[in-house]
Amino acid sequence: MITHQHVVVFQPMGIRTEVVDGHQLRDAAKSAGVEIRSLCGERINCGKCRVIVQSGNFERWGIKSGLDHLSPMKAGEKEYWSRRRKGLIAQGYDPDFLRLSCQACVQGDLVITVPESSQTAKQVVRKGARSRAVEIHPNVRKLFVELEAASLADTEGDWGRLVKAIAQIEPLTRNPGDQQIDTESLTIDLPALQELQHIIRQGSWSLSVTIWEGREVIRVEPGFSDSLIGLAVDIGTTSITAYLCDLSTGEILATEDTMNPQVAYGEDIMSRISFAIDNDDGLEKLHKSVIRSVNELARKSCRQVNLKPGDIVSVVVVGNSVMHHLFLNLDPTSLGRAPYIPATKNSIDLRSRDLGLTKLNTGAYVHLLPLIASFVGADCLAVLLAEAPHEQDENWLIVDVGTNAELVLGNRQQLVCTSTPTGPVFEGGHMEHGMRAAGGAIERVVIGDWWKPPRFKVIGNPSWSDSPGSHNVLARGICGSGMIDAVAELYRTGIIQPDGLFTDEELPYLKRSAESVEYILAKSDQTVGGHDITISQEDIRQLQLAKAPLYVAAQYLLNSLGLKQPDRILLAGGFGTNIHPEKALLIGMIPNCPLDRVHSVGNSAGDGARIALLNHEKSKQALQLARSIKRIELPIQTGFHDQFTLALNFPHMVDPYPCLEGIAPVRHPDPMARKLFGDTIPDLENY
Amino acid sequence: MITHQHVVVFQPMGIRTEVVDGHQLRDAAKSAGVEIRSLCGERINCGKCRVIVQSGNFERWGIKSGLDHLSPMKAGEKEYWSRRRKGLIAQGYDPDFLRLSCQACVQGDLVITVPESSQTAKQVVRKGARSRAVEIHPNVRKLFVELEAASLADTEGDWGRLVKAIAQIEPLTRNPGDQQIDTESLTIDLPALQELQHIIRQGSWSLSVTIWEGREVIRVEPGFSDSLIGLAVDIGTTSITAYLCDLSTGEILATEDTMNPQVAYGEDIMSRISFAIDNDDGLEKLHKSVIRSVNELARKSCRQVNLKPGDIVSVVVVGNSVMHHLFLNLDPTSLGRAPYIPATKNSIDLRSRDLGLTKLNTGAYVHLLPLIASFVGADCLAVLLAEAPHEQDENWLIVDVGTNAELVLGNRQQLVCTSTPTGPVFEGGHMEHGMRAAGGAIERVVIGDWWKPPRFKVIGNPSWSDSPGSHNVLARGICGSGMIDAVAELYRTGIIQPDGLFTDEELPYLKRSAESVEYILAKSDQTVGGHDITISQEDIRQLQLAKAPLYVAAQYLLNSLGLKQPDRILLAGGFGTNIHPEKALLIGMIPNCPLDRVHSVGNSAGDGARIALLNHEKSKQALQLARSIKRIELPIQTGFHDQFTLALNFPHMVDPYPCLEGIAPVRHPDPMARKLFGDTIPDLENY
Repeated sequence: MITHQHVVVFQPMGIRTEVVDGHQLRDAAKSAGVEIRSLCGERINCGKCRVIVQSGNFERWGIKSGLDHLSPMKAGEKEYWSRRRKGLIAQGYDPDFLRLSCQACVQGDLVITVPESSQTAKQVVRKGARSRAVEIHPNVRKLFVELEAASLADTEGDWGRLVKAIAQIEPLTRNPGDQQIDTESLTIDLPALQELQHIIRQGSWSLSVTIWEGREVIRVEPGFSDSLIGLAVDIGTTSITAYLCDLSTGEILATEDTMNPQVAYGEDIMSRISFAIDNDDGLEKLHKSVIRSVNELARKSCRQVNLKPGDIVSVVVVGNSVMHHLFLNLDPTSLGRAPYIPATKNSIDLRSRDLGLTKLNTGAYVHLLPLIASFVGADCLAVLLAEAPHEQDENWLIVDVGTNAELVLGNRQQLVCTSTPTGPVFEGGHMEHGMRAAGGAIERVVIGDWWKPPRFKVIGNPSWSDSPGSHNVLARGICGSGMIDAVAELYRTGIIQPDGLFTDEELPYLKRSAESVEYILAKSDQTVGGHDITISQEDIRQLQLAKAPLYVAAQYLLNSLGLKQPDRILLAGGFGTNIHPEKALLIGMIPNCPLDRVHSVGNSAGDGARIALLNHEKSKQALQLARSIKRIELPIQTGFHDQFTLALNFPHMVDPYPCLEGIAPVRHPDPMARKLFGDTIPDLENY
Repeated sequence: MITHQHVVVFQPMGIRTEVVDGHQLRDAAKSAGVEIRSLCGERINCGKCRVIVQSGNFERWGIKSGLDHLSPMKAGEKEYWSRRRKGLIAQGYDPDFLRLSCQACVQGDLVITVPESSQTAKQVVRKGARSRAVEIHPNVRKLFVELEAASLADTEGDWGRLVKAIAQIEPLTRNPGDQQIDTESLTIDLPALQELQHIIRQGSWSLSVTIWEGREVIRVEPGFSDSLIGLAVDIGTTSITAYLCDLSTGEILATEDTMNPQVAYGEDIMSRISFAIDNDDGLEKLHKSVIRSVNELARKSCRQVNLKPGDIVSVVVVGNSVMHHLFLNLDPTSLGRAPYIPATKNSIDLRSRDLGLTKLNTGAYVHLLPLIASFVGADCLAVLLAEAPHEQDENWLIVDVGTNAELVLGNRQQLVCTSTPTGPVFEGGHMEHGMRAAGGAIERVVIGDWWKPPRFKVIGNPSWSDSPGSHNVLARGICGSGMIDAVAELYRTGIIQPDGLFTDEELPYLKRSAESVEYILAKSDQTVGGHDITISQEDIRQLQLAKAPLYVAAQYLLNSLGLKQPDRILLAGGFGTNIHPEKALLIGMIPNCPLDRVHSVGNSAGDGARIALLNHEKSKQALQLARSIKRIELPIQTGFHDQFTLALNFPHMVDPYPCLEGIAPVRHPDPMARKLFGDTIPDLENY
């Protein structure tokens, strides 16, 4: 017997394959590595497997393609298309060239276009140079199920009936990477079971089920629904950001953020731990306030796109160890005193209702990424998921800066991590004119030559303060990155010394009083408040206290791996985004590294949370990754205090700074520091 | 190299084994099939593995045994015994002859007695002729764990630390039949995690953990605790019974029962379904009332033995399909109309807190046995677990009688089941003087010859009404079994005819009025109320309407298996316990069967619930068993109404009844009935 073979080309992938005559089109695509979606398992219902049949001569492949090269439509498919004709035209399709690939069989050569909506999705989560596309395989799957109606001859219970139907269609809808559903041990959450009878009858024996981790039905809806919504939440010490995501396409549907309401009980993590210890209801207050915020973010983000928070069926939460504990209502006391033991470092899956996340779907699960170490939290792990240093040959240094800084160094061979408190100065705290990185905050500073006047930019306004029309540029205060910019400029222009003290030189913008010296960054007529915004000796001291531990911690990590400098530095966190790499180098906040290899990566923790939300395997790998990272604890190592004291200084400039745009060669002023740090001290001679 | 072997005899089992010199005693016991308990995994803490060393010559085995045939005690064990010396003497032990079998190594011949407390337990659940011992392997295990204290050099989280310690001791404490704990995927319930840090430190890094199904830590307690408590609950339409059980020994610690509070919303299952349909909050009221009762039963049963309901970590619930649905807050509407579909027939595991069982331990799980069919519920399956017809060669007929009756027939080859409503008469309903089987209810009736006077017994009083001192025997009403007794006697003595109508004969105890005829069972001076207690023509009619479907259902089952009669009949249910088999045969309520093979098995559903509670494998087998039983639906079979009409009659007595203690040969009065039922009609000729 001769079996006819036909050539089928799948577009836009450009995959060419040979198919035996009569073979089902979707199956042929699958064999060729082209995954076409399906929710209904060939029941002619979900329409996810629709494809466009190209018509004409295709010389590139030497074939002729046409609708008649597929088996004719049967009544069911005909009826399917006729009901949707108008809608499809509105969406820009020509309905005459559409087929359901689960119904059509190959009878001749074909060129088939798989529209994006029919492809199993990938989503670019990290953009730019380090772009990362994530395959969409969340920990929830949705199936459309049609049941045989019950009768006196078939009195199987509703749930048993549903399990049987799922067992039938599951293999037909599963694509590689999807979680397999074990129908032998499949369970159903009680609230879903309580609704099941009603839902089944409402949908005339057809329903859509959402299955978590391939093992539990968590939601049932009448009839057909393909909506699958998740929420990625990054709980920072200062702010909380939520990303509402479509778990079918990976798209971000809405982003909402809010101040972390716990700020009212303490600005940094240590003061929140103290609040929990010192007040009987402290932990409860901290816990409830963050839960309330997440409920609220879910509500607001859904409202943006006309969804209900009850549509959210999967949540991933990341945060530092203390945020993690407070979110879970775990006592953070042990995190606040040696030996700094968390209740758990493992990843956790929880029912949203057990946490009081009552706005979400009652069956929704919340997944918390694991902690790397007591003070290297799930947020840092999320950064690693997003940046993937463990997949690199180069040694990357990742610095997640906030009131606490976490540092991870290494490559695919090994990773080490550590953490250090930095204080609130990077977030605008502990400075007279400090503020959060919000509208009106000075974020960029340049100081001119000669009489050394300042120019600045504020958040929310693209103009420099000295540009024409600059009367619009009114400052409210200085944010963390503005402070780094300003101090780097003060240092570069010689207004402050390597030890941070102001020069004795008289300068027009230096205001001296009996108590202190201040540099006037914005004059009263340039500010919202009508008062000068200045940088005082004490402000500079605060910055030194914040940047020194960061520098020393990085040196420890480099030493532990025997490295002189990292191949690349990534600055993560909302604050990291706004740091200008050359300024960070100039004040000796990060180790030496070619300037074009220092990057701000934005809210990378949020990206990592989304990756874990979109791909259950990534979220499982996270636990292995967390366990593989070696923790380097700073306080128990000798010599820390000496090094810290030295690192308070700014690296010494040997030559005068050549121009405003360039950066001068610098060298540490203290021979002992040079001995300790060797050549790994920021050395900018090449710039 | 020569390896020395020693003879070790384990008592009271009388198992003799040869052991290599130096081998650990507990391990040697295990190899010989003698299971010795352990909770601490050789940490010299739980003491569960203690054994008594016999000293002297044992001629039966030709050996000499003594303490010096075991390795000497090390410091740890010495300290263990010295701390407990007084307590052990108080318990009747001679502490000098006790050893921990996990510490002692065999160095010579030995006779070792394993005290009951050290043996892995078995529990006799069914007593009497069909005695059944169940091995104790509940779905929860308790382990005592000692952790390495955290330090700066070891900052593993508390939960990770606990998992590691469990992984170490688990294989040392597991006996065959125990659930294996998979520490790779082990999780911890959120409330337990929230307590964990505090519990660990309170117990100085030692704690006791309760693990459900080998996969989730549901409870943590500081230090050592071996208490493991469960509750088996049988929710009947009329009453609810709870058995508080020690899950280590299998013992019943306390039994509590209460009226099912749903009685206020409807006496039988159909009226409860109607209440749920007709009232918006009907289901909620029914659900909450039963949950409140179970909470209350847990509280009361624990109070009996000075436990807290929070000690209950595992619950098994059985009940008929409607009780099952109402307990789970599942809409029973579909159970009330054709095709009678339950929400689920599968077994279910639920968190007690999701059901509102807030008195129990917050981590406790509730297990519901599966339903066999829409109207053959989990209570009936529990009866099968207790009686095990599926393990017999004989064909058993099990009849669980209540306001609804479930019947199961068959043996290890196959089982068939059916159900039929019987109405409330068996529970004392629908009769003028009917009452529940409580104190004062007439439960036994004998009618004398000649002028046919009644004698009766009431519940709570061992005397007959005509015995000396009978002025104490005051009746309140007639319960279901009393009614069967009375009607059987009325029939036997010819006061009523085979069709149930009273004789025309004038008798002193027959009271005739224009509307009705009544037989006076208790005169006004024999009753609490001071009024005659009588049985009317209508009461008899009600009994006929209740017994006829039961009889017909049994015939259908027998026909479906091609059997003439069952080898044995078991009458189950609280009501079944009180039925006198000969009376049930006399009125044609059950098919013919030798009288000594008809048994009342008491609250067998409660026994089955306890078996499922004590042995997780039995509870898993229950699902297979439920699925294997073929359901025979009566209403859709032809000829039901004819047979029902015939079965309303009482079997016709051919000969006069020879004596009060014997039973006369009977035959159905109707030739057509005899044609239909053949010889399977009650045929008591042999008695």
